[in-house]
Amino acid sequence: MKLVRFGEAGQEKPGIIDNQGEVRDLSGVVADITGATLSPDSLARLRDIDPSTLPSVPSGQRLGSCVGQVRNFIAIGLNYADHAAETGAPIPAEPIVFNKAPSCIVGPNDDVVIPRGSQKTDWEVELAIVIGSKASYVGANEALEFVAGYCVCNDVSEREFQLERGGTWSKGKGCPTFGPLGPWLVTKDEIPDAQNLSMWLDVNGERMQNGSTKTMIFNVAQIVSYVSHFMILEPGDVITTGTPPGVGMALKPPRYLKPGDVVSLGIEGLGEQHQRFVAFEEKALDTSKGRQGH
Amino acid sequence: MKLVRFGEAGQEKPGIIDNQGEVRDLSGVVADITGATLSPDSLARLRDIDPSTLPSVPSGQRLGSCVGQVRNFIAIGLNYADHAAETGAPIPAEPIVFNKAPSCIVGPNDDVVIPRGSQKTDWEVELAIVIGSKASYVGANEALEFVAGYCVCNDVSEREFQLERGGTWSKGKGCPTFGPLGPWLVTKDEIPDAQNLSMWLDVNGERMQNGSTKTMIFNVAQIVSYVSHFMILEPGDVITTGTPPGVGMALKPPRYLKPGDVVSLGIEGLGEQHQRFVAFEEKALDTSKGRQGH
Repeated sequence: MKLVRFGEAGQEKPGIIDNQGEVRDLSGVVADITGATLSPDSLARLRDIDPSTLPSVPSGQRLGSCVGQVRNFIAIGLNYADHAAETGAPIPAEPIVFNKAPSCIVGPNDDVVIPRGSQKTDWEVELAIVIGSKASYVGANEALEFVAGYCVCNDVSEREFQLERGGTWSKGKGCPTFGPLGPWLVTKDEIPDAQNLSMWLDVNGERMQNGSTKTMIFNVAQIVSYVSHFMILEPGDVITTGTPPGVGMALKPPRYLKPGDVVSLGIEGLGEQHQRFVAFEEKALDTSKGRQGH
Repeated sequence: MKLVRFGEAGQEKPGIIDNQGEVRDLSGVVADITGATLSPDSLARLRDIDPSTLPSVPSGQRLGSCVGQVRNFIAIGLNYADHAAETGAPIPAEPIVFNKAPSCIVGPNDDVVIPRGSQKTDWEVELAIVIGSKASYVGANEALEFVAGYCVCNDVSEREFQLERGGTWSKGKGCPTFGPLGPWLVTKDEIPDAQNLSMWLDVNGERMQNGSTKTMIFNVAQIVSYVSHFMILEPGDVITTGTPPGVGMALKPPRYLKPGDVVSLGIEGLGEQHQRFVAFEEKALDTSKGRQGH
């Protein structure tokens, strides 16, 4: 199944992609696509529904993040052997674990805001894992049982904030709009081998990243197992698993994103994202849910 | 106001402390104490209620975390001048920002589980900030407007996982039960000066930490402002603000927690926590919400 969330930001409804590739409205069946929807039992119930019996959704609707109400948005660093090589970093002995703020999550085709003062906003196409069942101290041999599915993630990164401002990587990974997820949450039954998916990313039509999940250092099962030994993973948590070579930071000279740049990215079987990068000043950040400073 | 959540884990109800120090049941007024409850308008409505008109709650009930459904549980590292000195670390030029997994949050007096394989489980009494309004790019001069209140946090830490396993500090900060919050969420009107609160922590009755929020390097307003420049803070997010001297890692020789140790901690005006530390084997981790590996 390919699950989506469609509609205005903050008011998304759940949907499912039918055999013709069109969105059908799931809101009569479940309230949203969140952790509660992603248990094996819940997914089995959704699988029993014939999408053609659901209301069709007019085309052209905005897609939101394919999973809502994410609490823990975890990322794995330097997890591709060829990417570690391009950054000059040694191959990690254990997975590098950091966090993206859950408030950075946006839809797959939403504008991405270059943060105030940023000079080094960069791209990273990544395979993201969506957790379906609570996982604590699980072995790699059973770890995939706890996975609901996969989606594309652009792990947008501000390299100065990440690497030059002291402490951990959090500062450059969770800026507003830095976490596009989607278009679809593809359930794992449709992805028989998550370790053999081609992936790519273009900037203004120029191919920058061209890789495959087969060069991951730690695979999906190992990552889920490893992280579950340090923290409880909950349904709806997302783990994005690192990027292949070709990020802007590693180019000589480095190249970073400017207002007006368009980034497209995709992973085999998981769909594509298209983002316009905009200046902080261009984009009034959403204030619908509260006050904002100046 | 002092807000609490009482009842069994995962089924807590909202409560308020009355003038006699007893818990009154708020569940007829609000569903829970979460981000949605903590806006200035919502808190003003609660403040208009005379607690003596609410149902009383029998004493002896378990207290849960004083805030529910936390998404982003942020922590500030090395934020006390005297603590930075004891660890031998330089005074940070900017706040060090890392994450605790939200799934580590427990009640103030719940057992804390020493993780499987842990040799270096340590304590840290900390002042935690609870966010009340969405905050993005706010100045320090206005930052307190976005704060709902404060609570005590034991930022339980596994030093090997934190410092010797590669990458960022996340691995040693979010283990199951490593985030006791409470007993109360004290609204900021009751804490006229958050930078002059005495704080202490005992292990088995022996005073280990004895400090004051006045030795913070970056104060509450500076922290909220700073973090809001890197990520959107949402209502119900928690930022724990660092610990004064006296952690186990800094003792000569270092001293870490063992099964059976009892840790008590408190902050002036914010109440006390009491935790029994238990071995991983002693404590079947909660499996009520899903499967667990072995």
